[in-house]
Amino acid sequence: QGILERLDAGEIVIGDGGFVFALEKRGYVKAGPWTPEAAVEHPEAVRQLHREFLRAGSNVLQTFTFYASEDKLENRGNYVAEKLTCQKVNEAACDIAREVANEGDALVAGGVSQTPSYLSCKDKAEVKAAFRKQLDVFVKKNVDFLIAEYFEHVEEAVWAVEVLKESGKPVAATMCIGPEGDMHGVPPGQCAVQLVKAGASIVGVNCHFDPDTCLETVKLMKEGLQAAKLKAHLMSQPLAFHTPDCGKQGFIDLPEFPFGLEPRILTRWDIQKYARKAYDLGIRYIGGCCGFEPYHTRAIAEELGPERGFLPEGSEKHGNWGSGLSMHTKPWVRARARKEYWENLKPASGRPYCPSMSKPDGWGVTKGARELMQQKEATSEQQLNELFQKQK
Amino acid sequence: QGILERLDAGEIVIGDGGFVFALEKRGYVKAGPWTPEAAVEHPEAVRQLHREFLRAGSNVLQTFTFYASEDKLENRGNYVAEKLTCQKVNEAACDIAREVANEGDALVAGGVSQTPSYLSCKDKAEVKAAFRKQLDVFVKKNVDFLIAEYFEHVEEAVWAVEVLKESGKPVAATMCIGPEGDMHGVPPGQCAVQLVKAGASIVGVNCHFDPDTCLETVKLMKEGLQAAKLKAHLMSQPLAFHTPDCGKQGFIDLPEFPFGLEPRILTRWDIQKYARKAYDLGIRYIGGCCGFEPYHTRAIAEELGPERGFLPEGSEKHGNWGSGLSMHTKPWVRARARKEYWENLKPASGRPYCPSMSKPDGWGVTKGARELMQQKEATSEQQLNELFQKQK
Amino acid sequence: QGILERLDAGEIVIGDGGFVFALEKRGYVKAGPWTPEAAVEHPEAVRQLHREFLRAGSNVLQTFTFYASEDKLENRGNYVAEKLTCQKVNEAACDIAREVANEGDALVAGGVSQTPSYLSCKDKAEVKAAFRKQLDVFVKKNVDFLIAEYFEHVEEAVWAVEVLKESGKPVAATMCIGPEGDMHGVPPGQCAVQLVKAGASIVGVNCHFDPDTCLETVKLMKEGLQAAKLKAHLMSQPLAFHTPDCGKQGFIDLPEFPFGLEPRILTRWDIQKYARKAYDLGIRYIGGCCGFEPYHTRAIAEELGPERGFLPEGSEKHGNWGSGLSMHTKPWVRARARKEYWENLKPASGRPYCPSMSKPDGWGVTKGARELMQQKEATSEQQLNELFQKQK
Amino acid sequence: QGILERLDAGEIVIGDGGFVFALEKRGYVKAGPWTPEAAVEHPEAVRQLHREFLRAGSNVLQTFTFYASEDKLENRGNYVAEKLTCQKVNEAACDIAREVANEGDALVAGGVSQTPSYLSCKDKAEVKAAFRKQLDVFVKKNVDFLIAEYFEHVEEAVWAVEVLKESGKPVAATMCIGPEGDMHGVPPGQCAVQLVKAGASIVGVNCHFDPDTCLETVKLMKEGLQAAKLKAHLMSQPLAFHTPDCGKQGFIDLPEFPFGLEPRILTRWDIQKYARKAYDLGIRYIGGCCGFEPYHTRAIAEELGPERGFLPEGSEKHGNWGSGLSMHTKPWVRARARKEYWENLKPASGRPYCPSMSKPDGWGVTKGARELMQQKEATSEQQLNELFQKQK
Repeated sequence: QGILERLDAGEIVIGDGGFVFALEKRGYVKAGPWTPEAAVEHPEAVRQLHREFLRAGSNVLQTFTFYASEDKLENRGNYVAEKLTCQKVNEAACDIAREVANEGDALVAGGVSQTPSYLSCKDKAEVKAAFRKQLDVFVKKNVDFLIAEYFEHVEEAVWAVEVLKESGKPVAATMCIGPEGDMHGVPPGQCAVQLVKAGASIVGVNCHFDPDTCLETVKLMKEGLQAAKLKAHLMSQPLAFHTPDCGKQGFIDLPEFPFGLEPRILTRWDIQKYARKAYDLGIRYIGGCCGFEPYHTRAIAEELGPERGFLPEGSEKHGNWGSGLSMHTKPWVRARARKEYWENLKPASGRPYCPSMSKPDGWGVTKGARELMQQKEATSEQQLNELFQKQK
Repeated sequence: QGILERLDAGEIVIGDGGFVFALEKRGYVKAGPWTPEAAVEHPEAVRQLHREFLRAGSNVLQTFTFYASEDKLENRGNYVAEKLTCQKVNEAACDIAREVANEGDALVAGGVSQTPSYLSCKDKAEVKAAFRKQLDVFVKKNVDFLIAEYFEHVEEAVWAVEVLKESGKPVAATMCIGPEGDMHGVPPGQCAVQLVKAGASIVGVNCHFDPDTCLETVKLMKEGLQAAKLKAHLMSQPLAFHTPDCGKQGFIDLPEFPFGLEPRILTRWDIQKYARKAYDLGIRYIGGCCGFEPYHTRAIAEELGPERGFLPEGSEKHGNWGSGLSMHTKPWVRARARKEYWENLKPASGRPYCPSMSKPDGWGVTKGARELMQQKEATSEQQLNELFQKQK
Repeated sequence: QGILERLDAGEIVIGDGGFVFALEKRGYVKAGPWTPEAAVEHPEAVRQLHREFLRAGSNVLQTFTFYASEDKLENRGNYVAEKLTCQKVNEAACDIAREVANEGDALVAGGVSQTPSYLSCKDKAEVKAAFRKQLDVFVKKNVDFLIAEYFEHVEEAVWAVEVLKESGKPVAATMCIGPEGDMHGVPPGQCAVQLVKAGASIVGVNCHFDPDTCLETVKLMKEGLQAAKLKAHLMSQPLAFHTPDCGKQGFIDLPEFPFGLEPRILTRWDIQKYARKAYDLGIRYIGGCCGFEPYHTRAIAEELGPERGFLPEGSEKHGNWGSGLSMHTKPWVRARARKEYWENLKPASGRPYCPSMSKPDGWGVTKGARELMQQKEATSEQQLNELFQKQK
Repeated sequence: QGILERLDAGEIVIGDGGFVFALEKRGYVKAGPWTPEAAVEHPEAVRQLHREFLRAGSNVLQTFTFYASEDKLENRGNYVAEKLTCQKVNEAACDIAREVANEGDALVAGGVSQTPSYLSCKDKAEVKAAFRKQLDVFVKKNVDFLIAEYFEHVEEAVWAVEVLKESGKPVAATMCIGPEGDMHGVPPGQCAVQLVKAGASIVGVNCHFDPDTCLETVKLMKEGLQAAKLKAHLMSQPLAFHTPDCGKQGFIDLPEFPFGLEPRILTRWDIQKYARKAYDLGIRYIGGCCGFEPYHTRAIAEELGPERGFLPEGSEKHGNWGSGLSMHTKPWVRARARKEYWENLKPASGRPYCPSMSKPDGWGVTKGARELMQQKEATSEQQLNELFQKQK
């Protein structure tokens, strides 16, 4: 059954987690470029991570093609010279995802994300050509559906949806925005309306913010769609990091990004709360993004086990709400084997010399930057640079 | 070259990380029992994790045989019924470790850890028989050396060393104790002396405490050995969790153990500080335990790169001190591409409703418990239970 | 010169601090009732506090008549029986304030605040009669101007202003509301408009929230007045407690109120930042409320010293930005004798087991309570009680 | 009855609070010099503070003569030129204390503290002469007993006790040290022994550390006296600031000293815990130092009310354990009117951008400084300066 059949039937669809962050910690992705050449270089590592998410309950395996547009790959290194062409990376990613999906009951989704071309040249044809290059591979490899994700500007996201729709496959579209809307100031409700009008059947948000902020944003999207009398399925794939202190551009502007985010990592219990809130909000495609490890995904599947009527394979190694501790040697550890304990725990950081919140860099603190950014002109790299230098 | 040749030559030997915690998050180990049957059930997952540590710079791959003594396996489930005998688990773990070690330049170390038998019956012959059963496999599979690790009582650790020495292979021994010493009150210096006298060539600590506390403990061991005019190599494999608020038994007594430890996870920069301090203290076998993921191990290898003269394979995907950010689109993120930034960052938790430290449960708060525990009689499970019930 | 002459001339007028909190800590006011009978019982204590604020730079001494309406005094104890009539308390407070004001250049302001009558009976005539009883004393004692302060409902505040205006004296009116508006849901801008239309020459907020929140609220008032083309002077008298975690009703709902607020107390440097922000916003009557001690008031006067051209008497015992430390024995303490140091200090709490923010009780967490409260019917004590009992 | 009669009879004697800090906040003492000329300049302010402590339950009023030795007064300003001679300041302080003591049942204690002379010249005769100059006033004004307090070096404290004993009056002696001992490395137990041998009838600690640390230190003093078979009454007058992160020299080295200590201020409930612990340890002279306001002192008297059989006058305005809230309008505030609530509250700081602990400056971080300081030679101001400059 395809993605839309499942969602139309009222099923809960569980997404997967954040590949670039998980594989960075495992040693296969470089922070900074964040490009997915590991699909070619180390397929066994990518395959194993897919397997772990499948086992954790993911119904969709996204091809590991984040930032795999040709302009990004070229921009970020000598990939062409090394024969790591855009086509090779995307093909390898499709093959691995399909191989693992076949081990279970999962769908394969081909994914595109925002491009350097948009930020630097903003030529519609050029940007669309970049998406089409990836789409060609997805069509050839016959993925089940398509996801346009991680867009900061709804204009570019709409272009992506338009390209992906050329395939005739279902299209989901998620933006990496918060309640303040996209980088040009388009509010979430309006973003959702534009995406659905462009052809997306599923809309929502991914990355950049924690579950609470993402759900707030999806709620605004839902209200926008209702006001416009449009119908679409809702989707959320937030960070597994607490980011109450983010500015408009999310966790990238936090001083801890990307190498000091550990104290912000969500526990499995935080995830269960997220899954419940997402479900209650009417979201049925529930997944995660950066920071999500397999045990986070499993927590979604476990929280919604009663609604779905089954648990994922990975739950064979996980006691519900800590029940696995009931055999512990120490009685006070056994006393933790219950829902109420974990639900109410306020976990300490062990870092008494650190604060609990940070002031974001960048747009958050750079005087006048936000105004400039909301005019499209300011978003070229060079201008950002000049702006930053002037204001230091 | 064997482990002792390397250490005797002044080489730095990098250990691997914490298998049970990493595989729990990946969905293959159950928190509570923490037993390693995944070596039989899901060898590909164990193999992949070994590979990641190898790639991160580990010179030693420990067989995934933690808590794999027969009494523990039986105690913790119906493994025998399912044909997951102690022998099978240990053999599979050896095969996987050797297979991956051969892909690089690593040694394979067979490991034993504390047994339920010791806590419940304390019969020397019975406890030694349990170790011997594992040792038989290690000898048959011809591991390179042996590690007795995670012992709370030096008495049991000495028994383990004595058994392992029967093989004629080099033996390392680490206890999971803090500066206060073992659970019977034997101080670290004295523990080290007993272990070396029993035949250990390498001594130190692993698990239960954060790097600072572990290094403090190893320092006491070093002083104890010096005072006794004994020579041994030093080893540390601490947690990758900050635990300044621990009591005598370490992180198990923290209210966050084991499902709420996320805010305590060390950053890669914390690890680099640990590696440097360990080196300066004269420790040359430097690794990690629970919480260590491959990128933590890589951080040891990167910090000590100048001393060793090379970086691990995994560093191809890691810029030194965040240098990978130098290509980032946003100028304020590029500004983070330097050592001084990450060295001085005090990472926020994003959890303003949570404290920074916790009061440990158990021995930390249970009046009279520590006194009782220091008499061996109090350590049986039943007595702990009764004690806890009475004091609630 | 009267208050309006000063403000019309562009002068900065510095208010005083929080009498009930300061005198509670000194032992003369009871937390809970918070009534000002000390004016009769311990005039020397009230006089001394007035003197300290005068010395700190206050240009206005408010009579210590907070909660001194007859209904409140009777409600809160056997004051009538003890001959502590409303009249006596108000008269004594006027005499003390005038005595100290004459020692310097300060004005005396007679103050009224919200009444139990409003909450329980809501009869306009009865509530106005209560204010008139206090006003009679203020007229007899010839205070310089009048302040209606600490109102949660603009309706009652308007009644108070109407009564006070009967005297012909200038009237200031401040509400204890945040950006969400009054307890019936009237937004700050509209509150300001109603108060000015009722006759207030000065409007603003006092109490219940920290400076940042109060200034945000005054800003909304300012915008409301501008939109309505009304003119009035602006005034702010916030808490000297950090309350970023407050709900709609402010610090009373925080679990720390009123006996655990210490970690939230503002430093003198926090106050200097407040004074500057208030000034920049166009506020010219700048004072404080609960938590303000004389040194906080002095910090306002010191921050705005350059604009005013002089420092208060109390600054003879205070070095600008810590300059008094330049004579300290220890060189690292001397190194703190500079503005940059104190401006950037992030003061630690010394409380590693405590969080940085709290979840407010009451309206913040009580489902449905806010909706009910916004209908006036819900605000009687009995109904609040029933609501609370039902929802526990 | 004199101090010794009271203590010998087993009575609890309650000290007063911290004058320099309280009067600094009221505008009469300058931080940095911390000298007590207000006794001459603003006697009404000093008198009022004495009265508040008396009302809060203090059985002893200490003359406001901290740092009132002639060398300190001269060192810190042009006091002689202004006729604020050492004699005048000390006489005025005695007169005020006696006047207020006569309003109740309190004793007057004349106090001396460490001198600049000791640090700079270390000549025994000169230092003793400074103490004798103050003692002459105390004898002339006939104080009830004498306190040598705030000594960092036991050598100087012993000299002070020897001088004070010349009067024939009872002498108490408290040092501002922690468990590590005095600045020359003399441990607390030995300090206590030397002070008792020099003639002190009461020994203990004051200032520099929080209650927990002070009680730990007094415990060591008690054990030292027991080991030496000496008898003395015990006394503690700690800070009302939480200082778990202090180094050897206490709160002065914390970056927050003295203008950013607010988040560390103890609540009244913290004080009640302190009073109980002090009592349980056998301390019978229980008071406070810097940070103690009258309501803190009252909290000692309230906690020990059952043992003493009465409450202080100030308790007429204070409900036991928050009982005054039982009349509050809001039911959730009424729900706070109980001991269990306040005993268990973990008060939030409202400062999410601040840490919970700080790294101390000075000896805590200055490499080699402690070693130098433990040789007496390093303690001259000039040497400290040079040291600090070199190490920056």
